[in-house]
Amino acid sequence: MSFNTFGHLFRVTTWGESHGPALGCTVDGCPPGIAVTEADLQPWLDRRKPGQSRYTTQRREDDLVRILSGTFEGRTTGTPIQLMIENTDQRSRDYGDIARTFRPGHADIAYHQKYGLRDHRGGGRSSARETAARVAAGGVARAVLAALVPGLRITGYMVQMGAHAIDRARFDAAEIDRNPFWCPDARAAAAWAEELDRLRKAHDSVGAVIEVVAEGVPPGLGAPLYAKLDSDLAAAMMSINAVKGVEIGEGMAAAALTGSTNADEIRMGPNGPEYLSNHAGGILGGISTGQPVVCRFAVKPTSSILTPRRSVTVAGEETEVVTRGRHDPCVGIRAVPVGEAMMACVLLDHLLMDRGQTGGLRGRIG
Amino acid sequence: MSFNTFGHLFRVTTWGESHGPALGCTVDGCPPGIAVTEADLQPWLDRRKPGQSRYTTQRREDDLVRILSGTFEGRTTGTPIQLMIENTDQRSRDYGDIARTFRPGHADIAYHQKYGLRDHRGGGRSSARETAARVAAGGVARAVLAALVPGLRITGYMVQMGAHAIDRARFDAAEIDRNPFWCPDARAAAAWAEELDRLRKAHDSVGAVIEVVAEGVPPGLGAPLYAKLDSDLAAAMMSINAVKGVEIGEGMAAAALTGSTNADEIRMGPNGPEYLSNHAGGILGGISTGQPVVCRFAVKPTSSILTPRRSVTVAGEETEVVTRGRHDPCVGIRAVPVGEAMMACVLLDHLLMDRGQTGGLRGRIG
Amino acid sequence: MSFNTFGHLFRVTTWGESHGPALGCTVDGCPPGIAVTEADLQPWLDRRKPGQSRYTTQRREDDLVRILSGTFEGRTTGTPIQLMIENTDQRSRDYGDIARTFRPGHADIAYHQKYGLRDHRGGGRSSARETAARVAAGGVARAVLAALVPGLRITGYMVQMGAHAIDRARFDAAEIDRNPFWCPDARAAAAWAEELDRLRKAHDSVGAVIEVVAEGVPPGLGAPLYAKLDSDLAAAMMSINAVKGVEIGEGMAAAALTGSTNADEIRMGPNGPEYLSNHAGGILGGISTGQPVVCRFAVKPTSSILTPRRSVTVAGEETEVVTRGRHDPCVGIRAVPVGEAMMACVLLDHLLMDRGQTGGLRGRIG
Amino acid sequence: MSFNTFGHLFRVTTWGESHGPALGCTVDGCPPGIAVTEADLQPWLDRRKPGQSRYTTQRREDDLVRILSGTFEGRTTGTPIQLMIENTDQRSRDYGDIARTFRPGHADIAYHQKYGLRDHRGGGRSSARETAARVAAGGVARAVLAALVPGLRITGYMVQMGAHAIDRARFDAAEIDRNPFWCPDARAAAAWAEELDRLRKAHDSVGAVIEVVAEGVPPGLGAPLYAKLDSDLAAAMMSINAVKGVEIGEGMAAAALTGSTNADEIRMGPNGPEYLSNHAGGILGGISTGQPVVCRFAVKPTSSILTPRRSVTVAGEETEVVTRGRHDPCVGIRAVPVGEAMMACVLLDHLLMDRGQTGGLRGRIG
Repeated sequence: MSFNTFGHLFRVTTWGESHGPALGCTVDGCPPGIAVTEADLQPWLDRRKPGQSRYTTQRREDDLVRILSGTFEGRTTGTPIQLMIENTDQRSRDYGDIARTFRPGHADIAYHQKYGLRDHRGGGRSSARETAARVAAGGVARAVLAALVPGLRITGYMVQMGAHAIDRARFDAAEIDRNPFWCPDARAAAAWAEELDRLRKAHDSVGAVIEVVAEGVPPGLGAPLYAKLDSDLAAAMMSINAVKGVEIGEGMAAAALTGSTNADEIRMGPNGPEYLSNHAGGILGGISTGQPVVCRFAVKPTSSILTPRRSVTVAGEETEVVTRGRHDPCVGIRAVPVGEAMMACVLLDHLLMDRGQTGGLRGRIG
Repeated sequence: MSFNTFGHLFRVTTWGESHGPALGCTVDGCPPGIAVTEADLQPWLDRRKPGQSRYTTQRREDDLVRILSGTFEGRTTGTPIQLMIENTDQRSRDYGDIARTFRPGHADIAYHQKYGLRDHRGGGRSSARETAARVAAGGVARAVLAALVPGLRITGYMVQMGAHAIDRARFDAAEIDRNPFWCPDARAAAAWAEELDRLRKAHDSVGAVIEVVAEGVPPGLGAPLYAKLDSDLAAAMMSINAVKGVEIGEGMAAAALTGSTNADEIRMGPNGPEYLSNHAGGILGGISTGQPVVCRFAVKPTSSILTPRRSVTVAGEETEVVTRGRHDPCVGIRAVPVGEAMMACVLLDHLLMDRGQTGGLRGRIG
Repeated sequence: MSFNTFGHLFRVTTWGESHGPALGCTVDGCPPGIAVTEADLQPWLDRRKPGQSRYTTQRREDDLVRILSGTFEGRTTGTPIQLMIENTDQRSRDYGDIARTFRPGHADIAYHQKYGLRDHRGGGRSSARETAARVAAGGVARAVLAALVPGLRITGYMVQMGAHAIDRARFDAAEIDRNPFWCPDARAAAAWAEELDRLRKAHDSVGAVIEVVAEGVPPGLGAPLYAKLDSDLAAAMMSINAVKGVEIGEGMAAAALTGSTNADEIRMGPNGPEYLSNHAGGILGGISTGQPVVCRFAVKPTSSILTPRRSVTVAGEETEVVTRGRHDPCVGIRAVPVGEAMMACVLLDHLLMDRGQTGGLRGRIG
Repeated sequence: MSFNTFGHLFRVTTWGESHGPALGCTVDGCPPGIAVTEADLQPWLDRRKPGQSRYTTQRREDDLVRILSGTFEGRTTGTPIQLMIENTDQRSRDYGDIARTFRPGHADIAYHQKYGLRDHRGGGRSSARETAARVAAGGVARAVLAALVPGLRITGYMVQMGAHAIDRARFDAAEIDRNPFWCPDARAAAAWAEELDRLRKAHDSVGAVIEVVAEGVPPGLGAPLYAKLDSDLAAAMMSINAVKGVEIGEGMAAAALTGSTNADEIRMGPNGPEYLSNHAGGILGGISTGQPVVCRFAVKPTSSILTPRRSVTVAGEETEVVTRGRHDPCVGIRAVPVGEAMMACVLLDHLLMDRGQTGGLRGRIG
């Protein structure tokens, strides 16, 4: 991963600003012969796009993805796939304040200090709008994974909003698509709805924790020691806007465990080794074990709020910032499909790397 | 980062197994003219080496580092620096059990499945012994940072062992070097000592949380979007053996915050902008802001314990594993200098990248 | 360089096929604050575009470049710059023969064997049309070089067409822009014109040698041993369509020299060391010396000719291929601006790498 | 390729100076389970080592290679393989002149200007001694290729010394190992012997052209557009010390051909397509076609000669340099095994990349 490219063999390079004419990405190193059309990608983008419920920004962005290269007669050719999303909601407006003032919690000041100038319109390059390109790339990765590893399934959902975590005892995968929070616990979803309504009236926002699980991942993915599967997942998730923490399996809670509890014991099942628990989150020594790969990440609360916050201007004047506009009260909601997309890209990349190095051999047990 | 190399411009490639003749690393892309001798590196290795207290493994490893290339008359030449540590404690022993049985919680089974064979002696490549090479590379990075950014200071310490966190109100940096746990809270250190003694008698082990802080980091480090400073730190820390979670600033706790609390407000100080808090951990939009960079990571409990755990053999037979030998009851202790080393390498790498792209310009405020 | 990306810090990723809706590139890692608009890039594209004389293809491609991201108010922001060129001459036509038959000398058969399918329209990804994206990226590189190294000047020209080389004694830089061959020898240009007319009537084509010289290159560029300046130039030039050989300085002729002749002797001039000759082509040990960097490459004759050539079909049938259409009788002509663009990109990339590693220090002499 | 690492998946990082304690390389990404011992590698190093005939330097370097990691019980484990060669001929000597004077044609001045200091002993990092590490890595690559592509064979030989080229009509592969020049033309070898004796008496040296051919390369290797097989070969060969030109197939001579001559016509043979000629050198569009891959490179004459050459000192004084010592009169001779090693590494790297991306599929013909 370097600058705006991530991945080793399946490589994604994103480009574009929030309010430029378009944004997109180049997907390189994709296996050839895979059926991928715009119709295959659009549903993933629709999951991320704003305005899906009253809990996400009411900006209107159609996020229509176009494939400009790399496919022929509906199949990938092995050459770079250019995915472009035009920005249709570029209404002219007065950005005077944002142009000169640094919004607390935003990247404004950091971009200014690093580059000496910045495209302030809607956050420019640091806008979460860039994640649309990731979701498009993730759609390509999913199509390839579906062809190469039919049983692999990636599911993302929210497990905590603010201080309220789901009750794992009430986990119901069928619930995830039934509420606007991708929440597997119906009761938690109801509580979150109330909480978000309250926060919005209070001109505030809140953070969240997202969990992404990949089932059916073959053992052997991950290239230790510095392209470990967990290391690459950590980099991928931490690169998403507003993410402040990443966990694999037990995550930070592993600190509180004893060795006798934490070790996932192994027995022989009909199709090979089976684990009696999954504290490891499906990864040992940076390599997938065949258990579900479990990754969580925390998204900080939206920094764009109506509550005034103290800040300074480019000229060094002290001021207060109130960020008007149509902002997500919990940006974590829309991070769910983004986390899934990053999981898909990382898994496919490692599938290709492993196939390159080992030819896909699997050491026999039993 | 790919396979066994990490870094973009300051690149470290590690090699070596736990029980081979030696291990080490190549440090490439190092700025020239920096004073670095073996005597400068050895103290960092001594901090990591085993047997420093009764709370770490009693294996005797001198971990003497040799510089085989890349320096001339005590200064770096800009060519690759080879750092080698010979394995002196390669006593002949019977590895029969480990050779055929997969230790739960260890990488044994994953290496077997990926590669079809593995060097089982002491964990082979997946042994934490490899982190000695990281600490050596970190010593080079520190020497360069000392020359290029004189005020920069990196400090690692343990903030939680098992379920017992330090009390931040009792934080005393001077305590860190006074106890065997790199613990800034003397009272917590005493409690941890008791806890570890108890666990050892119970043939068990425990996890920990390490915090690494870098003060004096100039603003502007980090290359968004996929070589963000936090993304690269996450990858670096997650690549350390046994790490299961990484946090920047508030980390996972950011989920529970509101936007009005989380935003670090800004005022003008005598030398430019000053922040009223540091929830962000010194990084916004993947770029350092000049605030202290705060990174935490959780280390799972040592998997090598005397308590029997159920497992299987290569032949698919069910069995129980008891890992005898001289193992750390809390491997997190020795992860402290490793985390510091990774922080040093990542910061230097980004300092060089930023200097390459921007020439080290800093957008003026005020 | 990997797949469709080249460069270390100044990184260019190209995408697009000959007859898709568009092609382009992402320029990443560009220094911020550099004045670059579409009007700055278009002139470079106009030099490469077809139909400039009767000696290049009469296809009509306007090759209008659009900047979709990475600049703000006419300056680079340090974020990825997307350059797009729409394909306007996508007339519907019958590709039946090309679709099933492999044109000798073309990449058709190789793409088919590697990927199992290919976009045959106009050569698809293997079309020289892709070089338009390189020229656009080179325009950005030139703008940055102009800002960072004002005296640096890059000049490309043709030194041989078919068996006819220029007479170095008649070299006149002012001639280069005065004839359709970028030829610095007016008499050679006249001979080439006759030769090309003759070849075209004979339904044939011919190869060429291009020389690209960079003057004013500071000493110290190049990152030995595997990112040597000459090594990266060789890769860059060899990646251009139809290139079969690359030379630095004396090139292949160095084999015939003796050591006493080949060594460029050094004297002291008013501003430092001066060389009495430039057999080395400005590069020693992979590092620029401050002398002009001299690179040459040979372009094979256009494979698309009206003379029938024996070949086979996808079905394995033997056949003959005649390539109709509007093809360059000497594709080397249009390779001149492409070679210049690659030189610009490589030099800038190394300027940034060197600045990253060394801070731009220059060891003093005298 | 970056700094001291080359390769994408099969990655080699070299380190070490001519007169330091040792030099070597890390071979990373190697497929597991391949039989490789020191005894397998040593023969390749013996071919390169000095003192094999009176036409190479009489320095005594045993070049004994040790495997320090990455193999277990004689097989590769998939982890990094460290290959070390100790420098045994480090006799103490007076380097006073070289330390302060820049030898014309050498990298001395370029290293000084770039890094501000240099290890002058024997050329330090820029010494051709580094190529021993490449040959060792090439030995590993050959072992893997032998296992994965049994019919693949790599042969290097010298085709020109000074102005004297071999007569292709007298090409006899059996001759290559029978003379000290790896020359396939016995008569040319005799002429070269005389020429070298004459040059040595004249205190001079001479250049050479090496050809490396790989037969049995499967079609489909190469990752266009910027990791084309020819592009990577060009980079690899140009990175060898003293190389000034690289050619694929017809190379620079392609310029003089017409399209009707240059196109390699195709017919169907019993096992698929067959070509009637090989002007392309086995590569079309950057992808191997199944024909022999043919690569040539020119090595400049040894710069270390007894004939005085004018130069300057670090202090800027004008002086004359006579390079005493035991130098190769034609350094091209020892470049033959180095060229073979680079070919082996590049082919294996691309074999793994292709297997990663495409799974090794081959588009069917007939």
